[in-house]
Amino acid sequence: MKRTVITPRTLRGFVDVMPSTGRRRRQMLAVLEDVYTSFGFDPIQTPTVEYAEILKGKGGSESDKQMFEFEDKGGRQVALRFDLTVPLARFVAQHESELTFPFRGYNIGYVWRGDRPQRGRYREFLQADADIIGESGITADAEILTIIATALARMDIGPVTIRLNNRKILNGVLTRLGLQDRVAPVLRALDKVDKIGPGAVADELAGAGVSRAAAEDLLALIGSLQASNEASLSHVGASVAGSAEGEAGVAEVREVIGLVSAALGTPAPIRFDPSIVRGLDYYTGMVFETVHDEAPEAGSISGGGRYDDLASVYTTSRLPGVGVSIGVSRILSVLDGLGRLGDMPRDRTLVVLTQDPGSDRAELMRLAAAIRGGGPFDVELYPAAVKHASQMKYGDVRGARFLLTLDGDGTMSVKDMESGMRSSVPPAEVPGLLRKLIGSP
Amino acid sequence: MKRTVITPRTLRGFVDVMPSTGRRRRQMLAVLEDVYTSFGFDPIQTPTVEYAEILKGKGGSESDKQMFEFEDKGGRQVALRFDLTVPLARFVAQHESELTFPFRGYNIGYVWRGDRPQRGRYREFLQADADIIGESGITADAEILTIIATALARMDIGPVTIRLNNRKILNGVLTRLGLQDRVAPVLRALDKVDKIGPGAVADELAGAGVSRAAAEDLLALIGSLQASNEASLSHVGASVAGSAEGEAGVAEVREVIGLVSAALGTPAPIRFDPSIVRGLDYYTGMVFETVHDEAPEAGSISGGGRYDDLASVYTTSRLPGVGVSIGVSRILSVLDGLGRLGDMPRDRTLVVLTQDPGSDRAELMRLAAAIRGGGPFDVELYPAAVKHASQMKYGDVRGARFLLTLDGDGTMSVKDMESGMRSSVPPAEVPGLLRKLIGSP
Repeated sequence: MKRTVITPRTLRGFVDVMPSTGRRRRQMLAVLEDVYTSFGFDPIQTPTVEYAEILKGKGGSESDKQMFEFEDKGGRQVALRFDLTVPLARFVAQHESELTFPFRGYNIGYVWRGDRPQRGRYREFLQADADIIGESGITADAEILTIIATALARMDIGPVTIRLNNRKILNGVLTRLGLQDRVAPVLRALDKVDKIGPGAVADELAGAGVSRAAAEDLLALIGSLQASNEASLSHVGASVAGSAEGEAGVAEVREVIGLVSAALGTPAPIRFDPSIVRGLDYYTGMVFETVHDEAPEAGSISGGGRYDDLASVYTTSRLPGVGVSIGVSRILSVLDGLGRLGDMPRDRTLVVLTQDPGSDRAELMRLAAAIRGGGPFDVELYPAAVKHASQMKYGDVRGARFLLTLDGDGTMSVKDMESGMRSSVPPAEVPGLLRKLIGSP
Repeated sequence: MKRTVITPRTLRGFVDVMPSTGRRRRQMLAVLEDVYTSFGFDPIQTPTVEYAEILKGKGGSESDKQMFEFEDKGGRQVALRFDLTVPLARFVAQHESELTFPFRGYNIGYVWRGDRPQRGRYREFLQADADIIGESGITADAEILTIIATALARMDIGPVTIRLNNRKILNGVLTRLGLQDRVAPVLRALDKVDKIGPGAVADELAGAGVSRAAAEDLLALIGSLQASNEASLSHVGASVAGSAEGEAGVAEVREVIGLVSAALGTPAPIRFDPSIVRGLDYYTGMVFETVHDEAPEAGSISGGGRYDDLASVYTTSRLPGVGVSIGVSRILSVLDGLGRLGDMPRDRTLVVLTQDPGSDRAELMRLAAAIRGGGPFDVELYPAAVKHASQMKYGDVRGARFLLTLDGDGTMSVKDMESGMRSSVPPAEVPGLLRKLIGSP
């Protein structure tokens, strides 16, 4: 039967993860889970599809527009989640009686946004969130920031900077300027300063009814990054003097940086940056984004903040929260852009070659199992007795450290591709020999 | 501002994974990734959303009906994947030139089916697939079956049985009965025998144009399970005598069971079962399903088989494949049904209590970091100086093994909740003491 071939392709903004990227991704996810767990966070999962009503109107109109929304076969209006924070708020509200508070949970999963696809911005991407719910003090904020710094360092991606701000500072200034009823549109405009520049932001602020003088004050505030955190804090502190909320915001930032540095045992890679606003409407306190120092233009590789009212959409209980979202897909894309996404070494991989049609496959499978069981090895059994040269080439292309051949006399030939040395030993001695060659006890 | 509360709820068939289930799930996924990797499989990922055209018509009409399909905002007809096998076929066809064959890949992710939700059957569930592409010999089939047995044993879920059959046996019989042009509808009918019984299957076969005598032959064949694999193979061997394809199918099953037993070093938990058909249209050789021996009625916890023509939908290259899908959500549901899904022990969890408003939070964060860094501990810092009794209760409800308190004199009090013993030591000695108490070097 001759069939028409359907051209294999993916949707724009949806990408396949290839084996070498997949291996690096696995290493990153293992680090993230280890770090989250070591801070007492338990893994949870929420569905990828939820009632659209649950997801909409929490992140802001921009998120709503980008949502993958559709009617399911039962006539329900549903959507793919656009972040993991809104579903978490729904989760803690729904399961409040089953959870222990302060609740520490992490959730690793895909989110979907119908954004214009561009380098490093996908329509489907993987995020790894960690949140503390039910605690409003800044020790929780400091723990989240410590997690970010610890996890990114252990992921071995290069130097990063966490840019930190506090919405209380902005709120204090807005209140002083009489703009307390226009917080959301003003912050959304300010959030765009890196993208569209101060002139266009000023225009947008004017459109939101902000006077020219007030717009200048706001732009001066968010542009007031100084050489050191202490200098920036003093400078901004002067701008908010007299606003209790603004002064509290400055004090919190100062204290949190101190706590994180204490936990890390070294100055925290945090920069107080008054221009960090975060576009999402639900943040109420600390807001933070992380950039890779060698690719700041690639955008934030993690983001988060404090959202003390988000769960109030779903419950009358007070469930303040703070959390971070680490952008796994974005980090992989940044590393790719920096040329640092080569395949990881396969120094514990070995390929067992199949000699000829008469070779004893049961014996080879037994041997492969013994090597797997006896040490930290990934063992690939070449599954067919094709030409020896083809099998050797396979092992070479795979980058396997060892090639094994069962010889006619029943001994096993072990070739170490790193040293080029070849040894012949009885099969039972192979696991021990391999462990010796990789220097494992 | 008084807001209307939206009732927090999930869609039917879409479930939240709670912390204790999440911890067991994490353990299972770690085992699966370790086992897949130890057999030389690399992690890949395909998008959750694909062109509907790519996904439809490969699994069979039943799968098409159950697909979550919708039009995206760009007017494209798209769908959520209903399995990981069809996307894999698209993946290898699309990236053929970038992959090394035989290609071993694994993919862990959600799939969606608009099935009628019932116990253990969700509309969104997690699968962990492993496939070998580009090899048609049965060593690859034996490797996949060895992986299933190894992974399920290491996941520690209790005894399982892999039910194995070969489509070649059924094809041989169908050819002998002159039904070679009605394979798909006949197999779909036979696949339902467990659900609807032989009478209803006979009716469906009659509707597909199968004579009454042929239907009886087929039902006798798939009902011919004997006390031992060898007895079943002999019995079925007699039914297919004279059909080259049927005889080859029987010989393959016999040989594969021998290879897997050799690899495992013990008789493989495989039962040759002529009633295993698998509903999906794309299988061409071995087909297998696994049941939990204590809950066979819960359905299969893994399934798979050989599909030598699937990629031909997307490419003219010949890319035969064999693979397995391990149903992680299904396994969790089976364990839940068996009452075996309690929380895992927290024998390395400790809670650091916060004494009073004046306690040195920086000191506590430093100490928590030191304990995390110095040993295999999950350290929860209680983030607020609430009443001591409330913090003790938190530690108790969490099931933490140790509670730590920084005393006024600067020493640390360590309470071992297992033995009830309390020790007071300088903070610097805490990591060492904890390691001693859990018996770690």
